[in-house]
Amino acid sequence: MLEDTLARIEKDMREAPDKGLVANYIPELAQVDPSQFAMSVCLADGQQISCGDSTTDFSLQSVSKAFTLAMALGRFGNGLWGRVGREPTSNAFNSVVDLELAGGRPPNPFVNAGAIVVTDALLAGRSPKETLAEIVQFVKAAIGDEEIYINHDMARSENITGHRNWSLAHFLKSADNLEHECDLTLGTYFHQCAIEVNCQQLARAGRFLAGLSRDDDMIAKRHVRSINALMMTCGHYNGSGEFAYRVGFPGKSGVSGGILAIVPGVASIAVWAPGLNSFGNSMLGTIALEQLSRAMNWSVFETV
Amino acid sequence: MLEDTLARIEKDMREAPDKGLVANYIPELAQVDPSQFAMSVCLADGQQISCGDSTTDFSLQSVSKAFTLAMALGRFGNGLWGRVGREPTSNAFNSVVDLELAGGRPPNPFVNAGAIVVTDALLAGRSPKETLAEIVQFVKAAIGDEEIYINHDMARSENITGHRNWSLAHFLKSADNLEHECDLTLGTYFHQCAIEVNCQQLARAGRFLAGLSRDDDMIAKRHVRSINALMMTCGHYNGSGEFAYRVGFPGKSGVSGGILAIVPGVASIAVWAPGLNSFGNSMLGTIALEQLSRAMNWSVFETV
Amino acid sequence: MLEDTLARIEKDMREAPDKGLVANYIPELAQVDPSQFAMSVCLADGQQISCGDSTTDFSLQSVSKAFTLAMALGRFGNGLWGRVGREPTSNAFNSVVDLELAGGRPPNPFVNAGAIVVTDALLAGRSPKETLAEIVQFVKAAIGDEEIYINHDMARSENITGHRNWSLAHFLKSADNLEHECDLTLGTYFHQCAIEVNCQQLARAGRFLAGLSRDDDMIAKRHVRSINALMMTCGHYNGSGEFAYRVGFPGKSGVSGGILAIVPGVASIAVWAPGLNSFGNSMLGTIALEQLSRAMNWSVFETV
Amino acid sequence: MLEDTLARIEKDMREAPDKGLVANYIPELAQVDPSQFAMSVCLADGQQISCGDSTTDFSLQSVSKAFTLAMALGRFGNGLWGRVGREPTSNAFNSVVDLELAGGRPPNPFVNAGAIVVTDALLAGRSPKETLAEIVQFVKAAIGDEEIYINHDMARSENITGHRNWSLAHFLKSADNLEHECDLTLGTYFHQCAIEVNCQQLARAGRFLAGLSRDDDMIAKRHVRSINALMMTCGHYNGSGEFAYRVGFPGKSGVSGGILAIVPGVASIAVWAPGLNSFGNSMLGTIALEQLSRAMNWSVFETV
Repeated sequence: MLEDTLARIEKDMREAPDKGLVANYIPELAQVDPSQFAMSVCLADGQQISCGDSTTDFSLQSVSKAFTLAMALGRFGNGLWGRVGREPTSNAFNSVVDLELAGGRPPNPFVNAGAIVVTDALLAGRSPKETLAEIVQFVKAAIGDEEIYINHDMARSENITGHRNWSLAHFLKSADNLEHECDLTLGTYFHQCAIEVNCQQLARAGRFLAGLSRDDDMIAKRHVRSINALMMTCGHYNGSGEFAYRVGFPGKSGVSGGILAIVPGVASIAVWAPGLNSFGNSMLGTIALEQLSRAMNWSVFETV
Repeated sequence: MLEDTLARIEKDMREAPDKGLVANYIPELAQVDPSQFAMSVCLADGQQISCGDSTTDFSLQSVSKAFTLAMALGRFGNGLWGRVGREPTSNAFNSVVDLELAGGRPPNPFVNAGAIVVTDALLAGRSPKETLAEIVQFVKAAIGDEEIYINHDMARSENITGHRNWSLAHFLKSADNLEHECDLTLGTYFHQCAIEVNCQQLARAGRFLAGLSRDDDMIAKRHVRSINALMMTCGHYNGSGEFAYRVGFPGKSGVSGGILAIVPGVASIAVWAPGLNSFGNSMLGTIALEQLSRAMNWSVFETV
Repeated sequence: MLEDTLARIEKDMREAPDKGLVANYIPELAQVDPSQFAMSVCLADGQQISCGDSTTDFSLQSVSKAFTLAMALGRFGNGLWGRVGREPTSNAFNSVVDLELAGGRPPNPFVNAGAIVVTDALLAGRSPKETLAEIVQFVKAAIGDEEIYINHDMARSENITGHRNWSLAHFLKSADNLEHECDLTLGTYFHQCAIEVNCQQLARAGRFLAGLSRDDDMIAKRHVRSINALMMTCGHYNGSGEFAYRVGFPGKSGVSGGILAIVPGVASIAVWAPGLNSFGNSMLGTIALEQLSRAMNWSVFETV
Repeated sequence: MLEDTLARIEKDMREAPDKGLVANYIPELAQVDPSQFAMSVCLADGQQISCGDSTTDFSLQSVSKAFTLAMALGRFGNGLWGRVGREPTSNAFNSVVDLELAGGRPPNPFVNAGAIVVTDALLAGRSPKETLAEIVQFVKAAIGDEEIYINHDMARSENITGHRNWSLAHFLKSADNLEHECDLTLGTYFHQCAIEVNCQQLARAGRFLAGLSRDDDMIAKRHVRSINALMMTCGHYNGSGEFAYRVGFPGKSGVSGGILAIVPGVASIAVWAPGLNSFGNSMLGTIALEQLSRAMNWSVFETV
């Protein structure tokens, strides 16, 4: 039945007249074909069911924030929250307003400023290269040890054109909330965003957040619960309320059109559709998850 | 086991050195004894387990917003969302900033401005008296038809001293987002806030949101899901992220110290402790729910 | 030569294709003929030169704020500044944002919130009726003791429809920055705004601010300097920078299209053209003052 | 008499118990002796009267913005205003909030973001070195061709530690309101801020803004008027209203404690006292100008 549901969703998405707009600030994203679509679901019994372009690679972008947050919680526990908050915000993912009003403390770890702080925390006692290797290793372990790669051209492009992220990093530095030089932290951040996976890999990478992985020791259960809560309230920026309302389970989106979504105890879901809605989240990805949630009764707010 | 858990929580709360501060803007709230505590849980099997001062009445205040939202969704469905959003906000429950920036559209139905709009919608085609009777009737039906009362002194006090709500109502009116005169809508709103229940009644009143009520036709299931989602992302104002992180299921708080919390499909929970934290939510109520959530593994973000 | 200049300006203004939009929130303003134009200038030698519809009455609206500020400085001196600031603001004349961010202290006495506080201060120890009589008496004395009237229909209309001002007043009250009940203070405020004068009278009324009046004892010289400074930096709301840049001397505008402008030591100028620009200031009035300033070298920033 | 006034002011300032706090973000500023004080006044008759440490050099910092604005108005005229506004702002000199709310358009040319845009405009068709040479040449011409120097250590320090300016520059770049690379524009900007003058030189440098210079062709008269208007409404950041209220003539302050103030047609004034008030303007410099203004009746708002 899940196969049928995915097939039907894929058909609907392929036929959708409005597919959103691909991010256009770097060539690596602007040139992606917006008609692509993929979805993959890992279940508690070990099954994985996929549809569409599920073996095509895309960059994690902000989906990587879920993994670096997991690593940082593992290393620093609640100590992390001295530098970053846990509240959703009405402002956009790349807003400096929140930072200025809060004296340099990002509202949550999923807006860009917050994720930059998390990466900066991970750099403690490591070089950027070592940190990046740890991040890649963490994602590989989550997937189940396949090779994954970093798209260095993409990282380089973001380094050159990502002025809004540079603005955020320098603001954090001016507010004493960045321990390393801006170029070290941002260099690492841009590379973590450029990690490439396909939809099948991403769904497998999320199993530890859904409690499906054999290997229990990715991170402690209490951190899993925390990350899911934050993905619910903050995972889709200032569209998080809408996502909770329509989809009803935690998720983290990225500007490349990927979303990692978690049905706790039940499923780890990856969806990829490059066109974005006005909040910078995958337009068809969100609709596909909404359809899946309804078809499977997977909303955590469901009473049946 | 739930009895033991509640007993232990009550003991902890009674001994808590910091009980928060009771609201002091009207005498009816300022004079409440902050050492009171009650909790009550309705389960799927029909059992109800309570502890503490669970038969002492308190006013619903903003907890009433969950019921009026349910009524409005039942009457108007998605038509409601033209007048109010579904996103959490970084600003306080009584903020005018959000209204001004969004041209008079409240960010969500649980901040004061949003709830005033919801009540204004309910007034369509009814007098304030009729509307109020419908609200009381709805809460009574949810509880299971016991008598409940409105504290008219409290409503009168809020009418006189609730200048921030008057400020919000007039702003809404100036932005053409209030269909009735400010005094009609606010008069109704202040009275709905002054509905008095005890903790046992409130827990029963929430059963339809947890999917536990025999009587399925309070409102449609899809609206239940919607309300739970909104209670998760917006039910505790600019402390909603924190509540989701620590407690992990939907809830709606009120300034009298009550919280209605829902574990979808599992439990409807009421807690009451009059002292408030800095966000205006019950301080001990939140801690009690956090302990309950952990003890029972009731977080919707739990994977086990 | 000043006669010629005024004649030329009137001709230009009569022919201007875009005359702005009259305020439409109450019938008394919405029905005003936008093609009317008047200007009047009082000089140091006692001459008064006028053009256009300079004997047609219009309501002072926010121009009244200059007179109530003068009265309040006279009565309370610098004590007034505990309740209201002296800084321009980027927000609109009726913004609640500034109030919320500053804990209920208006940024300056010329935005609506600030002027409401000034009127509230004037009510100390007086009834609204007495206060209003004092305001009228002050304006009459400034003009030189002619009869002037209050347009009670206009005051009534504003009382009923001025929801944004009610929103501001209740916000001030909630922040303990209003000493009287909202309806007392706003009732007085709406009536002061409804004082009617014609352009010739308004120019004469401003002589004490330009240092031209025989009668030196309207208010102390140091207060005159203060009011002129505030009219320069704050008199045209979030268009004050533009007004200073283009016109170059202090002025206070009103929503009825009047502007009182002061060339210290040289001239008191009134202009009236009912159509407004996007900041809520008289569109042609501003242009007329700009032309006058250039023609007469009256900018205080002029070096010749 | 002016000599006596200056002597008395100097004495008062030397004895002032609270001298403010010197800027501490770079060693070059943090190490300055806060007890220093100087004032110098150039008059229409060619006289220059000075007191205090008036031959001690200090860096122009934001006072340089008056000169680069003059140059940019000379080169581009009103074309400049497409990229930067002319309104005062309630936010601090280094605020990113205004930029974000206005889509990358700084509110005025005297906040840091606005001045960075002005310098970026000056770079059109020139190398940073050539632009810097032009700026130095302009200041030298204004002073009357004495040698002045750039403090390269200071420029280097600001380049390394001026993260807030880097944040602003990258924000401007991300909003397409910077034509050159951030390091080119900021490199030039930091060097213009590091131009060193003494108080006597600065007073002479301001003569063209007061209309006192023999050489009329520094810039057109209409630009002089514009710059003075902007210095009045925006020259002291979010303390501009206060400065206009207390001092009453245009001025531009810098973080090194210098202020250039202009009495149009009458005097060009420089004051230097390194300690700052809460707005980042010279504390004693402001008080000294207030005393001078009162003693000489130099407020442009004065009616006598």
